[in-house]
Amino acid sequence: MYLEHVSSPADVRALPASALPALAAEIRSAIVGSTSVIGGHTGSNLASVELTIALHRVFETPRDKIVFDVSHQTYAHKMLTGRAAAFLDPARYGEVSGFSNPSESEHDLFAMGHTSTSVSLACGLAAARDLAGEKYDVVAVIGDGSLSGGLAFEGLDNAAELGSNLIIVVNDNEWSIAPNHGGLYRNLAELRATHGEAPRNAFRALGLDYRYLEDGHDIAALEAALAELRGTDHPVVLHVHTEKGHGYAPAAGNPEGWHHAVPFDVETGAVLPGAAAHPADENYANVTGALLMDWMRTDPRVVAVNAATPYIMGFTPELRARAGAQFVDVGIAEEHAVSYATGLARGGARPVLGIYATFLQRAYDQLWHDLCLNAAPVTILVFGASAFGTPDATHLGFFDIPMLGSMPGLTYLAPTCIEEYLDMLSWSIEHEGGPVAIRVPVAEGVVSRPDFARADDYARGWEVLREGSDVALLALGDFLPLGERVADALAGRGVSATLVNPRLATTPDETLLGRLVARHRVIVTLEDGILDGGFGERCARALAADDVRTLCYGLPRAFVDRYDPDALLASCGITVEGVVADALAALEH
Amino acid sequence: MYLEHVSSPADVRALPASALPALAAEIRSAIVGSTSVIGGHTGSNLASVELTIALHRVFETPRDKIVFDVSHQTYAHKMLTGRAAAFLDPARYGEVSGFSNPSESEHDLFAMGHTSTSVSLACGLAAARDLAGEKYDVVAVIGDGSLSGGLAFEGLDNAAELGSNLIIVVNDNEWSIAPNHGGLYRNLAELRATHGEAPRNAFRALGLDYRYLEDGHDIAALEAALAELRGTDHPVVLHVHTEKGHGYAPAAGNPEGWHHAVPFDVETGAVLPGAAAHPADENYANVTGALLMDWMRTDPRVVAVNAATPYIMGFTPELRARAGAQFVDVGIAEEHAVSYATGLARGGARPVLGIYATFLQRAYDQLWHDLCLNAAPVTILVFGASAFGTPDATHLGFFDIPMLGSMPGLTYLAPTCIEEYLDMLSWSIEHEGGPVAIRVPVAEGVVSRPDFARADDYARGWEVLREGSDVALLALGDFLPLGERVADALAGRGVSATLVNPRLATTPDETLLGRLVARHRVIVTLEDGILDGGFGERCARALAADDVRTLCYGLPRAFVDRYDPDALLASCGITVEGVVADALAALEH
Repeated sequence: MYLEHVSSPADVRALPASALPALAAEIRSAIVGSTSVIGGHTGSNLASVELTIALHRVFETPRDKIVFDVSHQTYAHKMLTGRAAAFLDPARYGEVSGFSNPSESEHDLFAMGHTSTSVSLACGLAAARDLAGEKYDVVAVIGDGSLSGGLAFEGLDNAAELGSNLIIVVNDNEWSIAPNHGGLYRNLAELRATHGEAPRNAFRALGLDYRYLEDGHDIAALEAALAELRGTDHPVVLHVHTEKGHGYAPAAGNPEGWHHAVPFDVETGAVLPGAAAHPADENYANVTGALLMDWMRTDPRVVAVNAATPYIMGFTPELRARAGAQFVDVGIAEEHAVSYATGLARGGARPVLGIYATFLQRAYDQLWHDLCLNAAPVTILVFGASAFGTPDATHLGFFDIPMLGSMPGLTYLAPTCIEEYLDMLSWSIEHEGGPVAIRVPVAEGVVSRPDFARADDYARGWEVLREGSDVALLALGDFLPLGERVADALAGRGVSATLVNPRLATTPDETLLGRLVARHRVIVTLEDGILDGGFGERCARALAADDVRTLCYGLPRAFVDRYDPDALLASCGITVEGVVADALAALEH
Repeated sequence: MYLEHVSSPADVRALPASALPALAAEIRSAIVGSTSVIGGHTGSNLASVELTIALHRVFETPRDKIVFDVSHQTYAHKMLTGRAAAFLDPARYGEVSGFSNPSESEHDLFAMGHTSTSVSLACGLAAARDLAGEKYDVVAVIGDGSLSGGLAFEGLDNAAELGSNLIIVVNDNEWSIAPNHGGLYRNLAELRATHGEAPRNAFRALGLDYRYLEDGHDIAALEAALAELRGTDHPVVLHVHTEKGHGYAPAAGNPEGWHHAVPFDVETGAVLPGAAAHPADENYANVTGALLMDWMRTDPRVVAVNAATPYIMGFTPELRARAGAQFVDVGIAEEHAVSYATGLARGGARPVLGIYATFLQRAYDQLWHDLCLNAAPVTILVFGASAFGTPDATHLGFFDIPMLGSMPGLTYLAPTCIEEYLDMLSWSIEHEGGPVAIRVPVAEGVVSRPDFARADDYARGWEVLREGSDVALLALGDFLPLGERVADALAGRGVSATLVNPRLATTPDETLLGRLVARHRVIVTLEDGILDGGFGERCARALAADDVRTLCYGLPRAFVDRYDPDALLASCGITVEGVVADALAALEH
């Protein structure tokens, strides 16, 4: 086995060319083997094996700089830079993160996991190199859907002005997470069909030099093409055609399904029983898709909008086909998704945009300047906003409440159970009071409360679930079950607590707070999000001039990485025992 | 005079073609006349007079939809849609806003003032039209630098998939606010030079149909070109060449200086004495540019980065030339600016990015995912973050504290005077503890405190300026003078207040707060920003479990428009008398 003896890129360069196909096969086998056990980005990584080998044979990192866009396709890069054991030895699976990680290796330049940043980052590296009067190659590797994000365009557009060494490898595997969308991808198809010769060429139009390589799995050809560009004195694009899932039939046959895989049987590709990564997500996805399909049948104005992750809102390929023009995937283009939805609403449609909290960050100004400034009736379903969402620092989803909490006129709802979620979603579609966002529950899986209290107007106020005294618990959204457990535990200590479902994540119910202050000495806020700028802080201000003690529980403003959610909560004092003890102490103060 | 008799676009369509040059001249004269008195976007509006007349002769708004990107070039549109008096009658100057405004007219579809949104909004309008089975034309008018924003690319990229009527007019006046940057603008130049025939064509490369019109001031030619596209069944780009400042020599001769004009003498174009819109801004700009030039001379790593508004950081054309490669204007591309700065820092440079608060919103995810996740040593100078910044709803700058307050590891400093600002800027360039943002003061103009207390480490804590008891005033940044006035007034009422310069806009000094709580019964926070998610709220949480009353003063989470800043503050209770009265009442509570 070659891979076991590769401890740095120098070892890759020392191998004879004849050994490389075997090395690629070993890497491919390690990708399939490790992701079959712990899950991961199987398809994208299988596509970039040979390209990564060639990059490390032609360029000498860390002196030369390689920036992998999104960086979920860096498994081969990690294996070739001293981290192979984490993919070969089942006992060490998961020892490295799934993304580029400077704390793991000097060959990883940036922590990154959102798309479309690589060219801008590489432009900065190149400019710093030129300022310092140094000489080395700077390479951005972009693909896998990342080109449709506006930042990638800004990067390419500015790269054309650089006037010095920059190599942009477009790893064209024909896919985003879901199918590619947009005119640029048609242009890539045209370029593939003409072996790069088509006169229409988006890269050349921006003033960039351009080369094409058809077989992105031919290491010798890749090496030759890259070697030719090494030391270039101007920015140049190398467009490489690869196959998502290459070399593993189940993945190659279903690129969307295998973009990110959960544990599977290597022989058949079948998902292992009980291996669905986020069963709650899937369940919420299904009911979302089903409810929206119902709405679409009776209301032609309803449109589901999505940015390359249709599955989060339950839009399987089959549902997409049934929805027709009432389902729109704009590709990886979150800014466009929000402004487009604003235009849809202004034109009389009722858009429902489903998006991960971490990616909604990319449309902050469109939320503020387009959606909210125009009070457009759009519903935004915010997924993964929880300590129990993706536990990678690059994809944390629990910064949403401060983000949306400074948007004028936006109603941000936090349902506590699946029934309330669906009712809020239907309510939002008919709501005429401006945009509504809904924080889809995550923390406790699918919580069912068939007897939840419907509201005629969810924008109006909070709901008291249990009347008590002394301590009032404001348990936001998916932390309601936690609030219930705390209330039960307090009852066991002789304190009958009031339990509130605030419903609104960013707007205190001043009337109710006034009533609570009169009968309670301690107010406790519980939220599945960061404290800084969050729900609890807003309550603390609303209560700041009152004679009451407020205890706020939430998450840290920090890039926690690959954490255990329960341990994270415990480190923030968010346990039933911890909250009860604090509340009792505050009562006695 | 024709213009006085135009009360709607139908009147424009009823005019004989022979009258149109005179109408254009009248509009042009009204633009120059009104902006010479109240200021405004002189150059951009002069460029789009004939185009606007032609648009309203060919399309029938409000049935047809026209979306003007940025919308600062809609003066002619306003004049032709019933609002001419606001430009003709000096007594009514300023009666209408400087941007597209749906509350003024059914011909204005969106409130908007940030760039690059029009194509996405128009795609949404077109999709809504198609869903409803209606027929009308949807037109996006984009230019004046707006094409370099990534959202414009996302819009164009998605437009190519629309498959129905959409007309994109590229109003190419050869300028952004400052000179254009990026490969796309080189392509526009190539297309202009070849009358649209160049084989390199960024629009065609994206799959869009394309036409070129050289003389963007020839109304007949514009009408003919637009009429040909009316009712098109697919997206098409009409590239029109215009001249920024057309027809007014001072503006045409200095497009950057006349992008936005302050009151001027019509005869000579000279700025009227005392007419500089933001003297404090100019002063802060000058000292920023001068200090950065000093740094650059001694430290080749220092780079000033900017996104199309170099003047805010004092970089006049002359300074730009002197700075050479140490000054970079990336054009209107704020996302790129932040990621690029991150790359620069990773490559060993020390970037200082100057940007308006309202435009920094466009780079929210790049701040979070690139800059902060990578703890990159970058300084961001945040301009206009104040109730006393631009008072247009589209450009409010006082939402910055919640935005930056949820960024992990970012130090956000709020200097109280020009000396402290400069010291913090120098400190930030040498700071190795991750990114630093600095909130450039606005509210009270240039405040000088030569005896300000330097800190060796501004990230560490707050500063007590006056020791008192009972009431502690936490007066953030440019509200320090307000805090001083409140402290003086309290002294007059027999209360010796403590006055604190918090320095840090998003991080409570827990140690100092603990000390304050011991000796004060009332804590007052004063901030020139929104309360929701702001500085006061953070203090309120830090103090929530203590036996103290906290009063928070700040701005509303609302799209206030064309407001008087002092009146806005008064409406929020922010007057010396108001705060004093509240504090005294709280003491007696």
